[in-house]
Amino acid sequence: MNQDYIKPDNWSIIEEGFDAESVKSSESLFSIGNGAMGQRANFEENYTGETFQGSYIAGIYYPDKTKVGWWKNGYPKYFAKVLNAPNWIGIDIEINDENLDLNTCTEVKNFRRELNMKEGWYNRSFEAVLQNGTEIGVNIRRFLCMNLDEVGIINYEITALNKDTKIVYKPYVDAGVSNEDANWEEKFWEPMDVKRSGNEAFVTAQTFKTHFKATTFMQNSIFINGKNGNISPSNIKTGTDKIQFSFDVIIAKGQKSSIQKIGGYTVSLNHENTVAAAEAVIKEALAKGYNQLLEEQIEAWAKIWEMSDITIEGDVKAQQGIRFNIFQLNQTYSGKDSRLNIGPKGFTGEKYGGSTYWDTEAYCIPFYMATKDQQVARNLLTYRYNQLDKAIENAKDNLGFKNGAALYPMVTMNGEECHNEWEITHEEIHRNGAIAFAIFNYHRFTGDYSYIPEKGLEVLIGIARFWHQRANFSTDKNQYVILGVTGPNEYENNVNNNFYTNYIAKWCIDYAHEQILKVSLEYPSDHKRIIEKVKLSDAELQEWKKVSGNMYFPYSEKYGVYLQQDGFLDKELVLVKDLDKSQRPINQKWSWDRVLRSPYIKQADTLQGFYFFEDHFTREQLEKHFDFYEPFTVHESSLSPCVHSIQAAKLDKMDMAYTFYLRTSRLDLDDYNKEVEEGCHITSMAGTWMSIVEGFGGMRVKNDALHFSPKIPKEWTGYSFKINFRNQILKVAVNHHDTQLTLEGSKEMTVFINGNAVLVEPNSLVVV
Amino acid sequence: MNQDYIKPDNWSIIEEGFDAESVKSSESLFSIGNGAMGQRANFEENYTGETFQGSYIAGIYYPDKTKVGWWKNGYPKYFAKVLNAPNWIGIDIEINDENLDLNTCTEVKNFRRELNMKEGWYNRSFEAVLQNGTEIGVNIRRFLCMNLDEVGIINYEITALNKDTKIVYKPYVDAGVSNEDANWEEKFWEPMDVKRSGNEAFVTAQTFKTHFKATTFMQNSIFINGKNGNISPSNIKTGTDKIQFSFDVIIAKGQKSSIQKIGGYTVSLNHENTVAAAEAVIKEALAKGYNQLLEEQIEAWAKIWEMSDITIEGDVKAQQGIRFNIFQLNQTYSGKDSRLNIGPKGFTGEKYGGSTYWDTEAYCIPFYMATKDQQVARNLLTYRYNQLDKAIENAKDNLGFKNGAALYPMVTMNGEECHNEWEITHEEIHRNGAIAFAIFNYHRFTGDYSYIPEKGLEVLIGIARFWHQRANFSTDKNQYVILGVTGPNEYENNVNNNFYTNYIAKWCIDYAHEQILKVSLEYPSDHKRIIEKVKLSDAELQEWKKVSGNMYFPYSEKYGVYLQQDGFLDKELVLVKDLDKSQRPINQKWSWDRVLRSPYIKQADTLQGFYFFEDHFTREQLEKHFDFYEPFTVHESSLSPCVHSIQAAKLDKMDMAYTFYLRTSRLDLDDYNKEVEEGCHITSMAGTWMSIVEGFGGMRVKNDALHFSPKIPKEWTGYSFKINFRNQILKVAVNHHDTQLTLEGSKEMTVFINGNAVLVEPNSLVVV
Repeated sequence: MNQDYIKPDNWSIIEEGFDAESVKSSESLFSIGNGAMGQRANFEENYTGETFQGSYIAGIYYPDKTKVGWWKNGYPKYFAKVLNAPNWIGIDIEINDENLDLNTCTEVKNFRRELNMKEGWYNRSFEAVLQNGTEIGVNIRRFLCMNLDEVGIINYEITALNKDTKIVYKPYVDAGVSNEDANWEEKFWEPMDVKRSGNEAFVTAQTFKTHFKATTFMQNSIFINGKNGNISPSNIKTGTDKIQFSFDVIIAKGQKSSIQKIGGYTVSLNHENTVAAAEAVIKEALAKGYNQLLEEQIEAWAKIWEMSDITIEGDVKAQQGIRFNIFQLNQTYSGKDSRLNIGPKGFTGEKYGGSTYWDTEAYCIPFYMATKDQQVARNLLTYRYNQLDKAIENAKDNLGFKNGAALYPMVTMNGEECHNEWEITHEEIHRNGAIAFAIFNYHRFTGDYSYIPEKGLEVLIGIARFWHQRANFSTDKNQYVILGVTGPNEYENNVNNNFYTNYIAKWCIDYAHEQILKVSLEYPSDHKRIIEKVKLSDAELQEWKKVSGNMYFPYSEKYGVYLQQDGFLDKELVLVKDLDKSQRPINQKWSWDRVLRSPYIKQADTLQGFYFFEDHFTREQLEKHFDFYEPFTVHESSLSPCVHSIQAAKLDKMDMAYTFYLRTSRLDLDDYNKEVEEGCHITSMAGTWMSIVEGFGGMRVKNDALHFSPKIPKEWTGYSFKINFRNQILKVAVNHHDTQLTLEGSKEMTVFINGNAVLVEPNSLVVV
Repeated sequence: MNQDYIKPDNWSIIEEGFDAESVKSSESLFSIGNGAMGQRANFEENYTGETFQGSYIAGIYYPDKTKVGWWKNGYPKYFAKVLNAPNWIGIDIEINDENLDLNTCTEVKNFRRELNMKEGWYNRSFEAVLQNGTEIGVNIRRFLCMNLDEVGIINYEITALNKDTKIVYKPYVDAGVSNEDANWEEKFWEPMDVKRSGNEAFVTAQTFKTHFKATTFMQNSIFINGKNGNISPSNIKTGTDKIQFSFDVIIAKGQKSSIQKIGGYTVSLNHENTVAAAEAVIKEALAKGYNQLLEEQIEAWAKIWEMSDITIEGDVKAQQGIRFNIFQLNQTYSGKDSRLNIGPKGFTGEKYGGSTYWDTEAYCIPFYMATKDQQVARNLLTYRYNQLDKAIENAKDNLGFKNGAALYPMVTMNGEECHNEWEITHEEIHRNGAIAFAIFNYHRFTGDYSYIPEKGLEVLIGIARFWHQRANFSTDKNQYVILGVTGPNEYENNVNNNFYTNYIAKWCIDYAHEQILKVSLEYPSDHKRIIEKVKLSDAELQEWKKVSGNMYFPYSEKYGVYLQQDGFLDKELVLVKDLDKSQRPINQKWSWDRVLRSPYIKQADTLQGFYFFEDHFTREQLEKHFDFYEPFTVHESSLSPCVHSIQAAKLDKMDMAYTFYLRTSRLDLDDYNKEVEEGCHITSMAGTWMSIVEGFGGMRVKNDALHFSPKIPKEWTGYSFKINFRNQILKVAVNHHDTQLTLEGSKEMTVFINGNAVLVEPNSLVVV
């Protein structure tokens, strides 16, 4: 862990001192995004040291031909890669005829990065001594406009420190980029057109196969001592996929000069004519100018924080952690566009590919539901509804199901499966459960039932059909079993009767059944439309009930716990604490067979079921299962500590809850899993939010009301969060003495604190 | 199935009529080999239709960088590819200035292929009408010399049928070849040198990475009406990796001309100077000349058949099948070179890669042991002994074992694992059992115990150590279990307590233990040497015994059978006969998860255990298990029908035994699995031999004597085979009335027929 590398600060992520070893990690941690595009914290100027270039455009992907060792039926033809997009940030710099390159210059002093999360900008500053003896000070700020979301802006300022200095700014746009994780070392972008006009340049390229068109643009203004010099390029290099300008400036010792580069993307997802759109958006940005754009940025982030901030007093690292998580979530997905979703690495890396995993339903929806307008969560549900046909096709064509059974993909961009390991693609089918659960959860939280007759019921029916067909009757057990699955714990593959999977399968069938009844009573015309469309008979419903009513769940009388899967107790049950530290993380130290037959759990599995279906079990049952499974859990998935933190808080194991909280909230900042250079773990950040709100705050929704059972770690003096509950905003502040409630809204709200009803009037403080 | 495609014939494989659709299948079926090299039945002249080029050199391979979707620890870095070797057979032909190409000529008449297995040559003849109206007759014979095993020879004869004809023969050698199954579309051969001298040419190339050097050579003689014209090339084209000569001939209508091409490989495995070796071997071949080489070929094969032939009377397809199997086995592996082994496709295709699978021990050794000098089987055992260090390294470095535990690779060329799927590489560990069993089997059959103190015991100890460590104690079962394996039935992955695996594991430990005791008593100095080398203590032996003495075997009281694995009875137990035919073969129709959770068995698994350890079970037990498992077996592995045929014969289910026999013996000829174009299933051919000798003949070795319990399918009038038992050759002939025994040897032999001792004197017929 790099615990001294990122400086603790309430509102900013700060790195001090230049260390080539941490460049790639910092490129991830200091990433910026605005929901429509994202940018790793790559240097603008050329850097010959180790770097991982990454620019990303939401919704644009490349179907990279599947690479497997041995083809199996049902494999998807491609893996949808998150595309490294054309480079718009690049500005090569020459200082007195020497290229500025932090890898080769004589000395780098006072290097400092700051990601100001409060205001939404990233700043880098340093002083460099070049090999030619020139000393310069450099300060660069950049941000991706939250409002004008096709635009990013860079202010790159140079001060001549020790002599008169000739500067050549060489900004460029370049579509000649590639992905590090390309399966076949192919390029993903095909150059189409380059265009230049004055200080503006446009490179248009399209993705191979998917034919997404993107115009990458730039506009450059050169300033000397703060004044726009209205300088034109002294040289222009135009290639098939790149345009680079040169601007020459000479400044005297002590003077400053800067280039302001406006850049970004206009894409065919949103525009017919992407070049015209780029010209228009440059005009708009220029009309506002850098300062106004920055002000608007600060305002936009203030508005986001106003609703979604969580404060923690007395523990700056915990405070920094949660804000980093909330910041990244808001950078990644704004909820404006229902075609988009939340990739596990967001805009911070390529790994995993695809944009949509079960993470969205299991972890992200609760966060967006409680911190945004409920339309955002509805958009995320609609995304799956829009892909229902493809989920049915996937189940039918690839996996042999029939009759409208739907299996949603493990990973997708457009509704098609795009993962390529059978143990995941074919067997990690529990994802279907989380998608149904999110519909239930959305209704529970928002009270908006209309989604179900409109769209959700069809999804629930497709999913129930899948589970009905996927289970089989075991004559040996005289019950229905689900064989050959991978549960949330991916450290067990092809197991039988994973408790979580069997449980959620049964629940999905029962829930779908209940909703069919409810819709038939309350929305008869929707019911008629849907039943006719999906051709659902009473006879089929009776068959469903046979399965859900007689599902097998592995259980140990000896331990009084449900077993994670049939064979769990045959394992060599050595606790994690008794495992030599040199063997961790096991997924980097052990061969796969050894991981699989070990009792070690990658992430909450049975406990995930207890999290979703808390009310189905007693507190004593939860405690027994927590005490049994937690000691075997290695938390090598980013999605694990948050659920454990919530469960530990519920069980009053506050020290554990706090430890898990730190682990989830600072997973990337402290690089627990030694892989942050590949990108940040975006989706698990929503789990961090849950671990405060649902863990320490104990928030639940029951019978259309918010319930809390607030607890506070001894390390904190207080914390607060806000919940947008049915269009009223409740602020909850907890300290060691009381809980304070404030309501922004127009009508009173009854909330429950530790089971006791409390009436909160709008705009007046209630202390409990 | 192409049941009319190959003509039934006792001694030859014959195809009549040209069908472009079956070119690739025929290229496999008409392959020739001589143990040192092999050649698919590709046309000599250029063919622009679909073809799968394949020339192979024994022992030469390329480590192709592993291609997987998602890397896992313990994966091998490469997959050892059977290399498509440089082309030595190519002879482009121009007829009156038009290229001869069966894909484009106007008509092909009387096309006929014959693989004469008795004499060891391949003949192709046809008449072609070219687009320019020329009609020619063509007859080509080629063979790979069994004696001069670096040499192949082609006699390519053309008759001018309708007019005076100008022929240009353009023979070439070409190292610019590639593998169809290359992971990264790379070339595997690096050209080094080309040399020409008179009518001879030499292209030397080396494999990338492994640096095997091969000189591919040719020498050409042109004949007109049977007389050597002593013609020199009219043109020579020399590239970096290819030399091509042109020879011009004009013949009158009705006349014949031919080219005799001597070609082949000399390789750095055998020679320092491969070009000099090539020159020498050409000289030797030329001195003998085509006719003498052909005579020697016929003699060599006569000698092989003399010992290894199996005759079947009254059933020409059955006769053709077994001879095809025996022929291919002898083409693939001669037993001369202990560095070589028996690849699953032999010299008939690229698929699978590697040369050594457990097939060698489980299927091939019994065949070679009984039809060759016992040194051949000893060489195959020694091959594994020589790779023991790598098996220990594999277990240690890749899979985390310790203390000299050895895990032999699933697939190998040089002792290193080169498969790349975890469910095979990491989990199909039963292979280790077959390697130990082969040592037991060798001693049982040959009576040669000396191999064990010399070499075998170290292998047995490494293997026993592996099983001891691989098992773990289940506190739940209070027994030792083996979790997460793939048994011989590859249609179940990552299962617990596969009966076959657990059983052979226990046997391996017990057998190793017994041999340690025996060696300590009978070979004390070997014992001392070995124990010191492997550092084996009594304490460790006691630990072994704990595991082998308390191993868990899954068993069903209800069915009275051992279960293939823990979860078998939870499956939906639909019999194969009740499965819709459109769903077969399931591995081509179903997604992998569906295959895995089905009850369908790819190949004998529990029954394989009953085959190896027959004496451990009663006939009633065998029958119960056969009747339980056979109806679930889809035989989609080539290794399955033979074991079922043997077991069925033992159980007097003669119709089934016969059906399985036909399936195993004509698997490729009738293309049961619709894949023969990829190559023939060489290793399972040894299983075919077993199904006659051990199945119908009922041969067993007990207490140093041969036992038979002869049975005969009603479709046959008689059959016979020979067994080389401890350097005496026993011929067994069975008909519906009696069994006839003849002994070639110097001393009498007591054999048992249906349990009754029969004394057989040398060279006198005994009828029982």
